[in-house]
Parts: sequence; C-alpha cells; structure tokens
Amino acid sequence: MKPINVGLLGIGTVGGGTFAVLERNADEIARRAGREIRITTVADRNTKRAREIAGGRIKITDDAFSVTRDPEIDIVIELIGGYTVAKDLVLAAIENGKHVVTANKALLAVHGNEIFAAARRRDVMVAFEAAVAGGIPIIKALREGLSANRIQWVAGIINGTTNFILSEMRDKGLSFAAALAEAQRLGYAEADPTFDIEGVDAAHKATIMSAIAFGIPMQFDKAHVEGITRLESIDITYAEQLGYRIKLLGIARRREQGVELRVHPALVSAKRLLANVEGAMNAVLVQGDAVGATLYYGKGAGAEPTASAVIADLIDVTRLHTADPEHRVPHLAFQPERVRDVPVLPIGETITAYYLRMRVLDKPGVLADIARIFADGGISIDAMVQKEAGEGESQTDIILLTHRTVEKNADAAIARIEALDTVQGKVTRLRLETLQGI
Amino acid sequence: MKPINVGLLGIGTVGGGTFAVLERNADEIARRAGREIRITTVADRNTKRAREIAGGRIKITDDAFSVTRDPEIDIVIELIGGYTVAKDLVLAAIENGKHVVTANKALLAVHGNEIFAAARRRDVMVAFEAAVAGGIPIIKALREGLSANRIQWVAGIINGTTNFILSEMRDKGLSFAAALAEAQRLGYAEADPTFDIEGVDAAHKATIMSAIAFGIPMQFDKAHVEGITRLESIDITYAEQLGYRIKLLGIARRREQGVELRVHPALVSAKRLLANVEGAMNAVLVQGDAVGATLYYGKGAGAEPTASAVIADLIDVTRLHTADPEHRVPHLAFQPERVRDVPVLPIGETITAYYLRMRVLDKPGVLADIARIFADGGISIDAMVQKEAGEGESQTDIILLTHRTVEKNADAAIARIEALDTVQGKVTRLRLETLQGI
Repeated sequence: MKPINVGLLGIGTVGGGTFAVLERNADEIARRAGREIRITTVADRNTKRAREIAGGRIKITDDAFSVTRDPEIDIVIELIGGYTVAKDLVLAAIENGKHVVTANKALLAVHGNEIFAAARRRDVMVAFEAAVAGGIPIIKALREGLSANRIQWVAGIINGTTNFILSEMRDKGLSFAAALAEAQRLGYAEADPTFDIEGVDAAHKATIMSAIAFGIPMQFDKAHVEGITRLESIDITYAEQLGYRIKLLGIARRREQGVELRVHPALVSAKRLLANVEGAMNAVLVQGDAVGATLYYGKGAGAEPTASAVIADLIDVTRLHTADPEHRVPHLAFQPERVRDVPVLPIGETITAYYLRMRVLDKPGVLADIARIFADGGISIDAMVQKEAGEGESQTDIILLTHRTVEKNADAAIARIEALDTVQGKVTRLRLETLQGI
Repeated sequence: MKPINVGLLGIGTVGGGTFAVLERNADEIARRAGREIRITTVADRNTKRAREIAGGRIKITDDAFSVTRDPEIDIVIELIGGYTVAKDLVLAAIENGKHVVTANKALLAVHGNEIFAAARRRDVMVAFEAAVAGGIPIIKALREGLSANRIQWVAGIINGTTNFILSEMRDKGLSFAAALAEAQRLGYAEADPTFDIEGVDAAHKATIMSAIAFGIPMQFDKAHVEGITRLESIDITYAEQLGYRIKLLGIARRREQGVELRVHPALVSAKRLLANVEGAMNAVLVQGDAVGATLYYGKGAGAEPTASAVIADLIDVTRLHTADPEHRVPHLAFQPERVRDVPVLPIGETITAYYLRMRVLDKPGVLADIARIFADGGISIDAMVQKEAGEGESQTDIILLTHRTVEKNADAAIARIEALDTVQGKVTRLRLETLQGI
C-alpha cells in the first residue's frame, strides 16, 4: 500500500520526539500499520532548528497553513499548542479534508465542540490521545476499552509538574516555593508555570475526559479549578500522620442532577495505588459500573512518551482514513446525536469528605462547640485530632476529617466555626476523596 | 441502523454477566455503538438455567453448532472454555463467516495460530480482550495504544487466584495450603485449582501477550510454567524483611536471540506499584521504548468485569463488521505476513536476579566458601543476610540476593553450593525481577 504522508506543525520537544520515534521504529510501525507512515513536511517558525532535527530529506517551511492545503498530505499533526494559531490551523486542515492528530488539550477543552463539529461536517478524524496523560492510552481506554460501562467517575493525577512538586514537598519537607524552584531547575516546570500550578492544565484534561466518559459537551468554562499554590507544608505533614497523601486530582463524576468537574488538591488514603504515584508520573482511576475500578499509570509528559500517543493516533487514523465514518470510533466516544447537554454542577453541590485544620484556644469547651456545629449541620466526623499545645502556648491545632457531605453545608459549618471566639483566623479546608462509589 | 444480532455460547458466570450488562447499559452502549447490540440466541447444555437467566424473549437452544450456522446471527460469543468443543465451535463460526468474541485464553494460547489463520481466510474478526486480565483493556493497550513502541517486555499479575493466595500468605502468615483453602471458601479458587496454582492460566495469558507485543506466533508449548504450590511461608517473610514481595508473574521479554516467556513466583521491590497489587486484583506492566513503563490495573476476573471486556469487543466488532479487513486492527496487532518466527529461549538462558536461601552450619569459613563460588561463576552479590542461629542450634539460614545473571550460571553455582559439606539440603531459589531495562 502507498505510504501515508504526514505534515508536522511544530517541531519542538514533542514534535522532535515524534520525528525520532517514527524514524527509529519505522519497521515495527509498518509491521503493525501495514504501510509506511512518514513525515514529509515540517512547518516551524524556526526553520533552522527544524532542519537540524528533521534532516535534509524532507520539506521544511515556516508557513504552516501551506501544509494544511498541501494535496500530498494525508494527516496533519498539530503540536504548536495554545488556542489561537493552533485553532486556525486545525480548522483549516479540517476544511481541507485532512485528518488531524493533536496533543493540544487547551484547544480541545476550550474549542473542542466547534472543532469536532467541523470535523464531522468534513468526515475527517481528529485524534487526541496525547492530549491527556501523555503516553498513557487513557483516551482509548475510556472511548473503547470501557465502552460497555456506564462510567461513574474518573479521577486522575494528570499534571506531572504539580505531582512532582507535591512529592518533593512531602519527601523533603520543602515549602511550595522551594519545591517549585527545584522543579524548574530539573526541567519539570516551565519558567512560567501558571497553567500547571494553578490547575488549568489538569482542568483541560479533566474536561476532555468528562466529555468522552459521559457523552457530554466540553464545558471547560464550568470546571472548578484550584491549584496547589496555597498548599501549606503543615497540611501535608498532618495528612501523612493521618495516613493520607495530598495529590492534585482532576475529577469528573456523574451525579443524578449533573456532573462534577473539578481540579483541586485532595487527600487520598496512602494505601491507595493513586496515592503512591510519585514524581512526574501520571495515573488515572476510572470507575465503571461493570468493570469496577481500573487504573492507568505512566509518564504523562516528555518528548517520547507523548510521541508514543501521537503515533498511536497516526496508526489508527492511517488504518481508518479511507473507511466510512460509521466504521470509526466517534471523536468523543458517543455518537454526536446522542451527546447530552448535562450541566456541570456548581462547586457548592459537590459531595465529598473534608480535611479541616483550625487554630483554637487551648481551653475547655472548644471541641464541644465545634462538634455541635457539625452535628447541627448534619455532618458526621470521621476523625478528630487535637495537637498538644506547645510549652507555654495557649493555642493549638485541631484537625478534623469529615464524612462525605455537600460542600455548601461544609462551608456553612466552617463559617460558623470561624465566627467562634475560641477559633483563631481561617479554617484550612481540603477535600478528601475516598474514590469509592457515588 | 439495524440492530446487531449476537449468539451467546455458554451462559455461566461470564455469560450471565454479559447478558446482564448488555441489558442494563443498552442505552449507554447504543449511544456509543450507534446501534442496538442484542443477544438473540443463547446456547447452553443447561437450557433451564439459560432460560432463567435470559428470560423468555430470546431463543434458547442446547445445540451450540446451530447458532454458528444461524443466518440471523452476526457475531458469536464463545464463553464455553476449554480446548475441545470450544475449538470446534469457534472454527465452525469462522467457517460460517461469523465474527467471534471469546474470553478463552486456553484455546487461543494453544490453538490461536490455527484459529487466526482461519479467521483471516474468511475475513472475520476474532476478538479476545476478555482472555487476558478480565476487565482491564490490556489487549487494546498493547495492540493499539502502544503501537508506536518497540515493546521490550510485559510483566503481569494476571491470575487473581494466586495473587489472592499470596496476599493471604503474607498478610496472615498462612501456609500455601491454608491460604488455598481460604481462597476456595471465598470463591476465589475453584474446587480443582490446578490451572491457577500451577501457573498454567497465567502462562496462557502471557503467551497471548507475547504474541501481540512482539509480533510472534503463539508458542505456549515453549513457555516455562511454574506455580506457587511449592512456595514456603518463610521465603515470603524473608523477602518482606528485605523489602520485597513475592508475586506470581507472567513475563514476556524480548531479547536479541529470542524471547523469554515464563511464569513463576518472583520477588518484586515493595516500593513498586506492582508489588502493591493485592488480593484478587490484576495488573500488567508494559515497557515500551518510547513510552517507558505503563501500568494497567483492575479486576482480572468475575462476571461483570469480564463482561465489560466481552462487550467492548462486541462494540468494536459491530463498528467494523462491514468494513474492509484493512480497516481493522490485525488480530494479533501485527500484519500476519509480518509476524516473525522468533524462538522462545530455554529457561536456562533467562537473565534475571535471584533470591537464594540456604541452611548452613554455623561455623567459620562457610560464607567465604559460598562467596567464592559466586565469584568464580561471575555472579555479583547484591545483598547477603545471615540469620542468627537459634539458642543451642548449630545451623542457620543464609539469604542472598544476586545481581542479574544468566540462569544456567546461577544454577551451576547453586549445584556447587549444595555440594558443600557445610550446606544442608537444597538451596531455595526464587527469581527476583527488577522490572527495569533489559
């Protein structure tokens, strides 16, 4: 069969990795795909770097749009990133009848509904395994491997930068700022780490997973997004003492009235595999009604792990590019006419457990007052620890773990607690995920 | 689109689960597959039980062959198990142009080459996600999700019965026999547990994974198969003290001269996620050259987890049943004409590390003699522990961990050690897997 010609837009880290793996494993890939898959054109603003990486045998251009129009190109890989040029390029490729492979989670989370609608009109595929959890084939697992299930929830460590920082904070007792600096020094965090540490990147990925898990549109603007910048070392220590680790989780959960879609730090029992995912690794836990819990673990970033996902998509698209659309897996797992407009619930409607830390005066009756407030709010307490006051100190910390409750009720109780004379300052509240049933 | 009609052969545990999940999730499945998938005929020797499970609206027969000939049936699910009738039925279905979905690892590991050749001749699909690791979509991950990679090795906990027994032995200090009895009481082990505890079931699954990971034929008869029946509690205890857990692993590893294909108990560092897979759970670790290590975890058995895999296959087959064969993923991941006759290496050529336990006289020079034998054999010692002799005892245990070496060299050294006057009885040898590179 004739080779498949691929145009690569953007030859940075992942683009370079894709180029290298396609070359190195050309034989193994052809053994699987049944034909050669070759990058024939690379578009990059830095044509000099592109030439250094891609060598002399292929076409190099700084005009990415020309690639989307090239009649010789069957598939366009978009690895430029961001929402602006990348969006125009992806839409142009689609309009020109090209299949698209992209690793661009921001683009899909924010403009995915528009992009997939355009792809359907033109009968082309838009594949995006690399957009979530790098080399872990989680999109395929959700879309195809677990297709028998009513998926109940997905919870993942889907940002390696923040997981690395949290591992460093715990292992070495570092502050957030020190751990971030270490991550930057080692190349795990970018110079501007905002998207990672504020949870935005994880929220892009959680949004994509919510769409393919539940058959709903992308609703990134409705996601609750909370990063790790305000996390204090003391809470990591206390959590550890109680048998928990703090992870930045991306969670999509189906409820009767809608879906929860949220990214925030959360306590996870140290006995769980998910709590033991360390450093820059990623892992996604999926709960399906038939299969129960399954977990997918691996490298969520990096040149070759991400290239692994990009090329897997290339092979899938190669196999199906001349097939009728009904022979293909729907872009977002569900038939487009069967996607349902299920709303994302406000964060106050979230149901989860909580870790609360409060500074209190070390005197009789304090605990009783606090316990009464929770009882009034119908919130059950799972564990309570009062730290011994230091020598000569009149204040101490109380740490409380609640059972699952509705977030707005927890917040109401916290407001009442903060109003007590005996409680100093604000209550620190972290969510605690049991990762079981609904 | 018209519904897909499925004939189910065998409505035992998994068949019942498949029936139940297809009914319960009919809407969710149709939202994905774009059409209804319905079981229209069930064949089971026990027609009364079949009727109880499947209800009155579908055809029940005790003649499974009639289902394979039924022109109304598009896909046949084989859940009878074993090599004999199941083989005839699968081949009959293929000859009649039916697509087949099966959970039968024994059949595929032993007769897979013949079955897939027949399926190619008739242009039908034979899907088998449920044959390995139950509900975990590991076949899809290996065949499609990691298709960019040269896969270097696969190592899995792929038999829940033995993992449950090993967890019980470790947690409760039980003997193998007591843990087996407990597993039988709780339904995790069958009345005749031979296939599980002797490693045969795991070897079937490892054989299937080796074929799709490396693009080689099924070579079950060449697999090295060792179960857990001779495992002693003392070694679990000693391993634990050294920071290791003992797991029954199925391993397929690519080497220059051939592949290692082996099932046996092995020490795994307790820090590894794989070592922390407890009870009846399954997990598979895959090392690819681009993606690095990825891990897949979930329930490896049970009615609905296995049904999850069976139905995922049904949906895949439904999507592609009218597509041209080149639009389908090859049965065994690689194009049939590109499968290579790579030999399975004899077990003596295995390269791995070892745990050795020996009973020695508690007198000077013993350690020196043993160390000399290893040095002569070019085997490096990673750790050595000599247990303190009990009060009034003249013998003690030495435990040794070696670095990686060729198995026949390790065995030669062990033979020399056993010949020493100061060493009592046989040396206990267990493999220790570092689960890193080659």
